[in-house]
Amino acid sequence: MGGMTLHDPDELAFAVARGDRRALARAITLVESARADHRARAEALLAALPRDRTALRLGLSGTPGAGKSTLIEALGVMLTGRGMRVAVLAVDPSSARSGGSILGDKTRMERLSREPSAFIRPSPAGGQLGGVARRTREAIALCEAAGFDVVIVETVGVGQSETVVADMTDVFALVLAPHGGDDLQGVKRGVMEAADLILVNKADRDPGAANRTKGDYAAALRLMRHRPQDPQGFPAVMTVSALEGAGLAEAWDAVERLFAWRREAGHLERLRGEQRLRWFEEELVAQALQRLHADPRLAAELPGLRGEVEAGRMSAPEAARRALGA
Amino acid sequence: MGGMTLHDPDELAFAVARGDRRALARAITLVESARADHRARAEALLAALPRDRTALRLGLSGTPGAGKSTLIEALGVMLTGRGMRVAVLAVDPSSARSGGSILGDKTRMERLSREPSAFIRPSPAGGQLGGVARRTREAIALCEAAGFDVVIVETVGVGQSETVVADMTDVFALVLAPHGGDDLQGVKRGVMEAADLILVNKADRDPGAANRTKGDYAAALRLMRHRPQDPQGFPAVMTVSALEGAGLAEAWDAVERLFAWRREAGHLERLRGEQRLRWFEEELVAQALQRLHADPRLAAELPGLRGEVEAGRMSAPEAARRALGA
Repeated sequence: MGGMTLHDPDELAFAVARGDRRALARAITLVESARADHRARAEALLAALPRDRTALRLGLSGTPGAGKSTLIEALGVMLTGRGMRVAVLAVDPSSARSGGSILGDKTRMERLSREPSAFIRPSPAGGQLGGVARRTREAIALCEAAGFDVVIVETVGVGQSETVVADMTDVFALVLAPHGGDDLQGVKRGVMEAADLILVNKADRDPGAANRTKGDYAAALRLMRHRPQDPQGFPAVMTVSALEGAGLAEAWDAVERLFAWRREAGHLERLRGEQRLRWFEEELVAQALQRLHADPRLAAELPGLRGEVEAGRMSAPEAARRALGA
Repeated sequence: MGGMTLHDPDELAFAVARGDRRALARAITLVESARADHRARAEALLAALPRDRTALRLGLSGTPGAGKSTLIEALGVMLTGRGMRVAVLAVDPSSARSGGSILGDKTRMERLSREPSAFIRPSPAGGQLGGVARRTREAIALCEAAGFDVVIVETVGVGQSETVVADMTDVFALVLAPHGGDDLQGVKRGVMEAADLILVNKADRDPGAANRTKGDYAAALRLMRHRPQDPQGFPAVMTVSALEGAGLAEAWDAVERLFAWRREAGHLERLRGEQRLRWFEEELVAQALQRLHADPRLAAELPGLRGEVEAGRMSAPEAARRALGA
């Protein structure tokens, strides 16, 4: 990029679309910023991106200790080995409190990070789930415009993060470790309902337990209602071993088959359209709140109203009504 | 109430403050309504309530099967037996999807519901957590103004509901069943951090397991950072048997001791002040969004913008900016 400033959103969009990795990294930094002038440029950047590219967006969640990042790394290395370009993004709404982030540990995904056709972006530090979701949607759009074949969005199972990730990806996979007893590892119902693929990892350690777990989840999935976007055999449950690589090719094959079927049957475009509409609604809320916080009249009245509310002299709803001017 | 219409917020507030149960029930129905004219009356009602009454607000959450409602009923019957007035409210953000509500089953809390000094209000059907939280805060304010000594707010452990309830109560208790293994029953870290009291229920079944569970949680709590609002010995872990009543008096004693200590040390007023401020911020957001949705210009432009976004011809952030007029 040399001396190019990339302050101009159109230039930055052009560099991203050309596949310039430093431009992509800068573009993601820009969309992650909360500064008002950065937001304006981020919006212009997003508006200037090419819209004719379609990556396979794979959402990936899992219980702690299921070996999620080992699996993503093994999958990523396999795919780049096949000549595909792979981006990995992380959604971690808890990073604000814990001070860390999913991919923040530099030793993680070491092999994949050395692949020239892989792009790994740790979760931005801080922020509430709403903000993280917004920035991740934008980072996905940037990676897709940059020509990646696959965009993997990883999330920890915190709060609503899985359903948030399922709502911005084409295929959503859940990674689990084989379980010992008869529980379902506390997997929330909403997460089960969002899963297209359940990968029981660590099948190398105890194949019997892995197969039993697979059977249990297959039985649980049969109780869920059929979704129109599922062809015969989906949602599917498979055993894999990220460590030994067993089952990875089959798992990826299932992901691609599902993606292709949904695309041909028109479900991909429908699902993405629905996702875009929810994104729009979230943006409406986020931008309306930004404007609210930037309102000088409100800024002037807020301290006094806060004092009244804190002391219990005015009810919160009344103070809010006065703050908004009515 | 006879022929009184209670359409007038001041009259309704007066009737609530006098302890009129039908007025309280109507007032809660009013704050639960999403209709714009009802909202305006609800706000006027809240503003007209007396502010000089302080109930002990007890939040109560727990894993499914922990025997939460049996415990609330036993506790409620014990307290009404001591001459106290007890209100029970429910927060259930999942009721929108499941079609049911925590207290919707009429057979639940049958004994307590027959007590004349008890008031049980099931969770309103439908709505997102934000809306449910808002209505619950308002229902708490109404019950407190109605002169209840204790307001128990029950929640299922769905999404963020426990932390939401912890943020609107004075004392937050977690009800758990004795566990078998070495897990902590998937209790989320944020919930542990919010707990003032952990009640290991069903101690009648297997006292050994209950005591082991108590020990495990006591050890886990010692790893949490000290909070200024905790006197010596808190957060506390106790075993109880809701079925047999064992430990209930001791558990309630702990709740009252903690409440009294916090009140005398000034923490109660500080914590409530902080809660009121967060309520205010939530109200600002909720009311700003209501106004947004009521804006006729936006209503006229929305269909066209939605079509552009859904088809992928316009980015969601850009469409939102245009919708808000800039």
